[in-house]
Amino acid sequence: MTARPANAHQARLLRLLRDSGPNSRAQLGDEVDLSRSKLAVEVDRLLETGLVVADGLAASRGGRRSHNIRLAPGLRFLGIDIGATSVDVAVTNAELEILGHLTHPMDVRDGPVAVFEQVLAMVGKLRDSGVAEGFDGAGIGVPGPVRFPEGVPVAPPIMPGWDGFPVREALSQELGCPVMVDNDVNLMAMGEQQAGVARSVQDFFCVKIGTGIGCGIVVGGEVHRGTTGSAGDIGHIQVDPDGRQCACGNRGCLEAHFSGAALARDAEAAARDDRSPELYSRLETSGRLTGADVAAAAAAGDGVALDLIREGGARTGQVIAGLVSFFNPGLVVIGGGVTGLGHTLLASIRTQVYRQSLPLATGNLPIVLGELGQAAGVTGAARLISDHLFSPA
Amino acid sequence: MTARPANAHQARLLRLLRDSGPNSRAQLGDEVDLSRSKLAVEVDRLLETGLVVADGLAASRGGRRSHNIRLAPGLRFLGIDIGATSVDVAVTNAELEILGHLTHPMDVRDGPVAVFEQVLAMVGKLRDSGVAEGFDGAGIGVPGPVRFPEGVPVAPPIMPGWDGFPVREALSQELGCPVMVDNDVNLMAMGEQQAGVARSVQDFFCVKIGTGIGCGIVVGGEVHRGTTGSAGDIGHIQVDPDGRQCACGNRGCLEAHFSGAALARDAEAAARDDRSPELYSRLETSGRLTGADVAAAAAAGDGVALDLIREGGARTGQVIAGLVSFFNPGLVVIGGGVTGLGHTLLASIRTQVYRQSLPLATGNLPIVLGELGQAAGVTGAARLISDHLFSPA
Repeated sequence: MTARPANAHQARLLRLLRDSGPNSRAQLGDEVDLSRSKLAVEVDRLLETGLVVADGLAASRGGRRSHNIRLAPGLRFLGIDIGATSVDVAVTNAELEILGHLTHPMDVRDGPVAVFEQVLAMVGKLRDSGVAEGFDGAGIGVPGPVRFPEGVPVAPPIMPGWDGFPVREALSQELGCPVMVDNDVNLMAMGEQQAGVARSVQDFFCVKIGTGIGCGIVVGGEVHRGTTGSAGDIGHIQVDPDGRQCACGNRGCLEAHFSGAALARDAEAAARDDRSPELYSRLETSGRLTGADVAAAAAAGDGVALDLIREGGARTGQVIAGLVSFFNPGLVVIGGGVTGLGHTLLASIRTQVYRQSLPLATGNLPIVLGELGQAAGVTGAARLISDHLFSPA
Repeated sequence: MTARPANAHQARLLRLLRDSGPNSRAQLGDEVDLSRSKLAVEVDRLLETGLVVADGLAASRGGRRSHNIRLAPGLRFLGIDIGATSVDVAVTNAELEILGHLTHPMDVRDGPVAVFEQVLAMVGKLRDSGVAEGFDGAGIGVPGPVRFPEGVPVAPPIMPGWDGFPVREALSQELGCPVMVDNDVNLMAMGEQQAGVARSVQDFFCVKIGTGIGCGIVVGGEVHRGTTGSAGDIGHIQVDPDGRQCACGNRGCLEAHFSGAALARDAEAAARDDRSPELYSRLETSGRLTGADVAAAAAAGDGVALDLIREGGARTGQVIAGLVSFFNPGLVVIGGGVTGLGHTLLASIRTQVYRQSLPLATGNLPIVLGELGQAAGVTGAARLISDHLFSPA
């Protein structure tokens, strides 16, 4: 795809078709507030670019029946979501529906060269499966702050070797299509907004609890990235002035008390101290513990595991309570690997937020788990690149 | 003024003339990206409404010299800033320059009827002074959350008797002009953005430390009011899980540890416990202490007063550090009555934020005192109503 919309009207039409599927000219006219003749001009120009195609006759609204219009069925976007310990690659159509999705374990600390080798192998596998011949654009998320205009990670604490690496440029050359790069948590928020629990919500934030903790912020329907691209970096908000030593050098950071990594550490300590037979036997078996082990132990009724989840939820809720007071969102979404801890975690977060924030801010505030799971990031990545391509050139 | 701009171009031209003063047609054309002929049409229509007037010949740019255009010199806006213990009323011209400004002590707990009586008396005094014959619009700030579209305070904790009072409607009838209502802290932020330290900054927040503590948030140049109008309500963010009992029912809220009210309480306790001769003699003299007394005692070298300011700054900084991590602003402004505590307070806030937030967020982050002092709120109020009037009807 080399064509781009020539003006804001065309961009608006493309996004409408992306988000609500095939539409009649009459329906489109109602939505975009263009005169019939101007709409016809813009639609005809879009048909000429090949970005949209005619798609059968629309349902009759009386009078002459009009043709449905849809985005070109051959458009393909790549969504790539690089986590700390795994990578997801998916292919979507122009409506951002996932046509193929692969997940592989991976260590982001291996650096960009090794990680991209794996990503490209996964892309090749997806192409071989027949869901795509080529790609019209790719979005990619990385687990750290990004200088958004350039698509370059900047001082990412858990990504040694990535600082300043030209992700956008390198990947664009390899794939031969336009690429946009963002922080993984921003993409999770965009994914839930596109196809998940945050559809039609204008102001919300999405807390991702994985190896670390981050937060994607949406204001007025748009991702808020902040002045240096580090907005949502809530893992180092202090929850206890006398708290645990954190890797960042401070004391009592949220991440030092709760995150996938902290939870695994605490669970292993409990197993070794013989406080939890359930966790001990799991540690014996696999040599290490993860959030998933804690979830399983909790499900089996293990009191120590349940306490770890509840305490972590309370710490997280303490931070979220402050952010709710500050930002007054319409929705809070909890996502990431640790959502395997499920409703015990959610209940604990909710209790803390509803207790600590003022009633005016929490009266109608849903706090919910994300709906898309591992598909959130890749969906958000496809949305990111399509937003870019469906903007005036 | 009954005329309103007929379209977005006219609105843009009016705001341009407000923010940068008289302009030649040629300069305006450069700014708004309209063809010469379209610009001429819009300017002529604005001249017909009387909102703008011709204002002498512009400097030559070669060729035929064009007339300068300016906003009608007779336009007058009222800015009203209701605090917990005082009220400010000011009159501005269309460029939002203050032509007259009165401040009076007042207790917001006396309720809207008594407060408006005083406000209207002050408005009368300003009118009698000759700065205005009538008013084209008024903006008003109140120290609590506001349901913005209706202009009605909602569950304001320190404003008994105001809950649901139709401020906008009542004042509009009394003054005979359009009125807009907002939270006082949002107006402080808009004032500093219009004419103070935050000019040209797109993403910042403004912490107002007065009787209580609140925060005005600007995202992409626009005030972020939140889903229920309570965004920025940071006074009840927890700074210490084992901290002081707060009036809201929770423990360790920022306001319970530091605000004008908490500072006065702590200073009086120190005076009575004989820990500070300086504060004791001030308490003896006036029967009570305020933030201003603490500032004076600190300036006189009183160690207890200095410690109170430093501790308060550290608590405030602790909260701001978290918000900086979350929001990644380009600027943090500290304002409100307690800024009399000056650089001791500021230094203590800065130390905490720079220590606790990640370097990526604080690397280029100025934390500064507001520039406008008591004029910030009334300037913001005039900006609020002019934004409304300079929008397409």
